[in-house]
Amino acid sequence: MATLGLSCVRLCTGLTLRRASPWLRPLRCLSGMTVSQIDEEVSKLLELKARLGGDDGKHTFVLKTAKGTRDYNPKQMAIREKVFNIIISCFKRHGAETIDTPVFELKETLTGKYGEDSKLIYDLKDQGGELLSLRYDLTVPFARYLAMNKITNIKRYHIAKVYRRDNPAMTRGRYREFYQCDFDIAGQYDPMIPDAECLKIVYEILSELDLGDFHIKVNDRRILDGMFAVCGVSDEKFRTICSTVDKLDKMPWEDVKNEMVNEKGLSEDVADQIGEYVSMQGGLDLAERLLQDPKLSQNKQACAGLTDMKQLFGYLQLFQVTDKVVFDLSLARGLDYYTGVIYEAVLCQTLQTPAAAEQNGAVPGDEAGVSVGSVAGGGRYDGLVGMFDPKGRKVPCVGVSIGIERIFSIMEQKAEMSAEKIRTTETQVLVASAQKNLLEERLKLTAELWNAGIKAEVLYKKNPKLLTQLQHCEETGIPLVAILGEQELKDGVVKLRNVANREEVDVSRAELVEEIKKRTSQS
Amino acid sequence: MATLGLSCVRLCTGLTLRRASPWLRPLRCLSGMTVSQIDEEVSKLLELKARLGGDDGKHTFVLKTAKGTRDYNPKQMAIREKVFNIIISCFKRHGAETIDTPVFELKETLTGKYGEDSKLIYDLKDQGGELLSLRYDLTVPFARYLAMNKITNIKRYHIAKVYRRDNPAMTRGRYREFYQCDFDIAGQYDPMIPDAECLKIVYEILSELDLGDFHIKVNDRRILDGMFAVCGVSDEKFRTICSTVDKLDKMPWEDVKNEMVNEKGLSEDVADQIGEYVSMQGGLDLAERLLQDPKLSQNKQACAGLTDMKQLFGYLQLFQVTDKVVFDLSLARGLDYYTGVIYEAVLCQTLQTPAAAEQNGAVPGDEAGVSVGSVAGGGRYDGLVGMFDPKGRKVPCVGVSIGIERIFSIMEQKAEMSAEKIRTTETQVLVASAQKNLLEERLKLTAELWNAGIKAEVLYKKNPKLLTQLQHCEETGIPLVAILGEQELKDGVVKLRNVANREEVDVSRAELVEEIKKRTSQS
Repeated sequence: MATLGLSCVRLCTGLTLRRASPWLRPLRCLSGMTVSQIDEEVSKLLELKARLGGDDGKHTFVLKTAKGTRDYNPKQMAIREKVFNIIISCFKRHGAETIDTPVFELKETLTGKYGEDSKLIYDLKDQGGELLSLRYDLTVPFARYLAMNKITNIKRYHIAKVYRRDNPAMTRGRYREFYQCDFDIAGQYDPMIPDAECLKIVYEILSELDLGDFHIKVNDRRILDGMFAVCGVSDEKFRTICSTVDKLDKMPWEDVKNEMVNEKGLSEDVADQIGEYVSMQGGLDLAERLLQDPKLSQNKQACAGLTDMKQLFGYLQLFQVTDKVVFDLSLARGLDYYTGVIYEAVLCQTLQTPAAAEQNGAVPGDEAGVSVGSVAGGGRYDGLVGMFDPKGRKVPCVGVSIGIERIFSIMEQKAEMSAEKIRTTETQVLVASAQKNLLEERLKLTAELWNAGIKAEVLYKKNPKLLTQLQHCEETGIPLVAILGEQELKDGVVKLRNVANREEVDVSRAELVEEIKKRTSQS
Repeated sequence: MATLGLSCVRLCTGLTLRRASPWLRPLRCLSGMTVSQIDEEVSKLLELKARLGGDDGKHTFVLKTAKGTRDYNPKQMAIREKVFNIIISCFKRHGAETIDTPVFELKETLTGKYGEDSKLIYDLKDQGGELLSLRYDLTVPFARYLAMNKITNIKRYHIAKVYRRDNPAMTRGRYREFYQCDFDIAGQYDPMIPDAECLKIVYEILSELDLGDFHIKVNDRRILDGMFAVCGVSDEKFRTICSTVDKLDKMPWEDVKNEMVNEKGLSEDVADQIGEYVSMQGGLDLAERLLQDPKLSQNKQACAGLTDMKQLFGYLQLFQVTDKVVFDLSLARGLDYYTGVIYEAVLCQTLQTPAAAEQNGAVPGDEAGVSVGSVAGGGRYDGLVGMFDPKGRKVPCVGVSIGIERIFSIMEQKAEMSAEKIRTTETQVLVASAQKNLLEERLKLTAELWNAGIKAEVLYKKNPKLLTQLQHCEETGIPLVAILGEQELKDGVVKLRNVANREEVDVSRAELVEEIKKRTSQS
């Protein structure tokens, strides 16, 4: 399933010239262009670049990662590992298997699956052979996998990076390369049971990650479609109006209405009717009330959606998660492939990175107390697998995607503010010496420890100072030092030093492994 | 570090037409073309394709993964997890941290690092903005990371996929997208100590994976260069002759000599002198003997390499790994960036996939008893970080890469032949019922178990048959069933069934969690 909030994209993403050219019009004029005009412009730019020397042209080499991507340093990896462990444990607790798919797919596999977001797909260069694109989410590759292997039911998770040529706001944890953690249930089952489990999973993960308060918005594409129909939106506009409604979490109603009326061609009256519905929020009660709504109750689709919504809330009560779940008619989700229930989890606290705080200085109150955006989302997509099956056989699916980058950012902030130091290695003991010419003895003991399964390090110096060796332990959090000297070697012992309290005891060589294991079993 | 054995590439890789065209010459004529002729032809083909409708042309959609890539199904993932756990444990035992880098880099970052193999790099389509390429290995991104962050010493591992537009032989576990597991030590240290640890790591991992006998070939680029010099190869030909020597594990000496003489322009006499050296294998003794060699001993580079080789074998003795390490003058490794010691681990057993066995029917004896190719490789690359540093500051590095795909293939084969069934989930208990209308009670109990940290499943059916529920346990290896019925609900108990021996006992609801934990603590 794809995380959301990526719809607000400017068409000219990435359209930057490496060298300014006087005879091309300035970039700021691009805003009113159509897609095909832009395509034309892009190719002109590429031609120009080629004429200037192309890929092999001489220019200053910039030492950086690609735009919108980042490295993870060891500390960030330690946090990432912790977050993944919580998420994977939850997926396994719910009986999921895992699969993996390639980072690129045939371009055709992705075509026609993402609606307006398709322009954000990364294509590979045509170097002869197949046309390829980087995966945009894990859901479409999953559907392709099911159809290709004729799998009709599976409960699987998949944690991997996906790629979107979006204009990223990196201070707020949004990237062009980012992880998704997906859990999906495929198969023909009784209504809303797997759907409820997906919501239970989001609830468990966000609770366990301890990110502060959150809520999960729920809606149904059939309710949205029914609502559009009774408000007088024509069928062919459902999807595009859906995309516009999806922006309600980032834009005020006035702007959304403006887009509906001026860009998408709805009448003001129709837009206002939509506006009334999308302001509604509630729970089981709202579903029951809307089933009595004079307009909505006349629409078959809407009734089916509302009946399922009632059923869903029943199961959520059994799962004891209704305190965080809100039936919210403004939730739309941008992607084309959803067919039934949809949901999105939002953190209630403010994410205040130093950079964001600075920006907010200029726009007071912009973020205060407002949600930081979605950290999970998903829904039911019963038609997607059928798009891949040669005979169109459908496999009903429902799933959820945890948008992990924003969670990483919050965890990093928490770690920075906390007094506890994050260890990036698990080394239990450093093999050291206070005397010269003992490198060989140090290496021999280190190998003994490795062979016994002890996590051990030794400095790669012939004659390191004891102080240097102890400092290495302090810096990296190694709790023990095994110190060798002439006397210890003669006596068949090792001086085992506790780095924290500096206590030293002689331990016989034969008992060293057990002693280290005993002392580090808690950590 | 990069795994090897990827040099034997045909230039026309991937040059296939999606639709045959009568007015382009047939593909089989391409074999004698130069690179620039091929470039020209490729662009003609692309133009043709565009004229035929380009990306949007109507043609049959093929349901497949991209050439040279594959999905991992849940069973393969279970094996992969097992292999990764062994490798990561080893890296952590040796005190390594981990980092991650993006899947694509600026194209320039990869330029000029891989010598003849550069043509195998995947480029991304120019969609405006930066020119990007998929990473070819993890070593160059590592060096870029060090230079960018001004890190002068680190011991890190990195496990991730890399991309090569090679002509893959997938039955033998070679792919265009494949995992590398890299361990590298960066920093200015006393000679050969980190180098020896890298070899110790390869030894530990291959032993623990239990893949059968193996050996590790070691050589040094300085010894190779010295050897080329004393044999009369001109300086500018060192690297290209190195690439040719690297093919000795896949081609007989006659073919290698032929390439040296006819393609690379060496005289037959020079080639024969090289041939004599590259047939030498040994240990510490060989290094000592070559230090006395009348020709080699005159070369400063060679002497430095041989002296280090002696030192290395000394440390390897302390690490007790010399039984598997061979000083082999034919080991060259194709990549440009190595500057000192190089090594490569080879499995001695035959890898017999059914497909390979079939192919071998046509070429009898081709594989019998012969090594299946390298499963790990690496070496010292002291100049690579300096290529990225604006001031050219060097950071000495040495590392090793475990080529995991071949290891997966072998582990999969072993698993298939073994009687033990691989579980793809870790579910401890299925919540079931023999009676109708107990869905809500099943869901409630399942949620109780999840909340207590028990891995539990429940079938998504209102009224599943007991037999169906028991079959699900048999198929997926779930060891326990918690059965609910009217009577059990009245008595406040659950019938806990052992799937293996069919024994059932009533357990009070309050003690259920503890009982399940107790019974599944071994598994």
